[in-house]
Amino acid sequence: MEIHVLRLGHRLPRDERITTHVALVARAFGADEITYAGQKDGSFEDSVKRITENWGGKFPVSYSKSPVSTIKKYKKEGCTVIHLTMYGIPVPEAESKIKSGNKEKILIVVGAERVPMEIYELADFNIAVTNQPHSEVAALAITLDRLQKGKELKRNFNEKFRGKLKIRPNKKGKTVEKS
Amino acid sequence: MEIHVLRLGHRLPRDERITTHVALVARAFGADEITYAGQKDGSFEDSVKRITENWGGKFPVSYSKSPVSTIKKYKKEGCTVIHLTMYGIPVPEAESKIKSGNKEKILIVVGAERVPMEIYELADFNIAVTNQPHSEVAALAITLDRLQKGKELKRNFNEKFRGKLKIRPNKKGKTVEKS
Repeated sequence: MEIHVLRLGHRLPRDERITTHVALVARAFGADEITYAGQKDGSFEDSVKRITENWGGKFPVSYSKSPVSTIKKYKKEGCTVIHLTMYGIPVPEAESKIKSGNKEKILIVVGAERVPMEIYELADFNIAVTNQPHSEVAALAITLDRLQKGKELKRNFNEKFRGKLKIRPNKKGKTVEKS
Repeated sequence: MEIHVLRLGHRLPRDERITTHVALVARAFGADEITYAGQKDGSFEDSVKRITENWGGKFPVSYSKSPVSTIKKYKKEGCTVIHLTMYGIPVPEAESKIKSGNKEKILIVVGAERVPMEIYELADFNIAVTNQPHSEVAALAITLDRLQKGKELKRNFNEKFRGKLKIRPNKKGKTVEKS
């Protein structure tokens, strides 16, 4: 399974840290790349690149001027489009309907303040992680967890990412190795 | 099971939105209340109160001047203290060790930039949701999900919260009822 994430409507300075959290969750939870739309933000791109350089793996960040065109392009390629919205179908109901085989390609669209209705229409699934207001960061984490059936949390992260920085899990402190 | 959340080291303006997301995730994912430490922030408290007024349920927000004393108080009451940190034991390994029966009381400590070593020592479990850098918002969501075995996502939220605003799940649009 290949998973891409599209973050809509990035606004500065408001979304500076939230969009970074969205990107880092995507990377840590096994998504393959992220595209963002809204305001172009070199500092956001640099943060994600710096983390990827230190902690390893490949995690491209790209910018889209037109997220609707980006979604249409993914749909043409046969990709399943999931839009995360509190107005959608509860995730436990939706997850059984989404094919998540090895060959599947999934685009997860992460909204912002106001998402155009066109995106609700284009999405194959409008999914709600609780129908309550909370956080796109949490909604993305839970969706990535459900799509991968919890496997992404059982990985050996040091083997997967082969970063310069590696954590050895510790019951009571911090153990970081640098290479 | 009763779950409280303690958010450490809130800093303004940096953590303004992240701490709000932490609080809203706690509420939506079934935690009972939140305490925060760091800078006192009336605007954060008001945001959470406003959301709770509109979307229902009870979700007290309180401030702690000394998070270490707060944790010690919880421990005296027999509460299990879970500290979320990327340096800890992987969540799939830890979750089987944490009792999560009906009578259990759990405090989840959500870190900030630098967490004093004393908190690692005080915690019954230092838990990592991936040993990679990402987001305390996502770590909290996954931990609440695992502790409740996914049940919190299957709730009827309108029955649970009885808010003035209610969402009716919709495949392709937004359906909000106001009462």
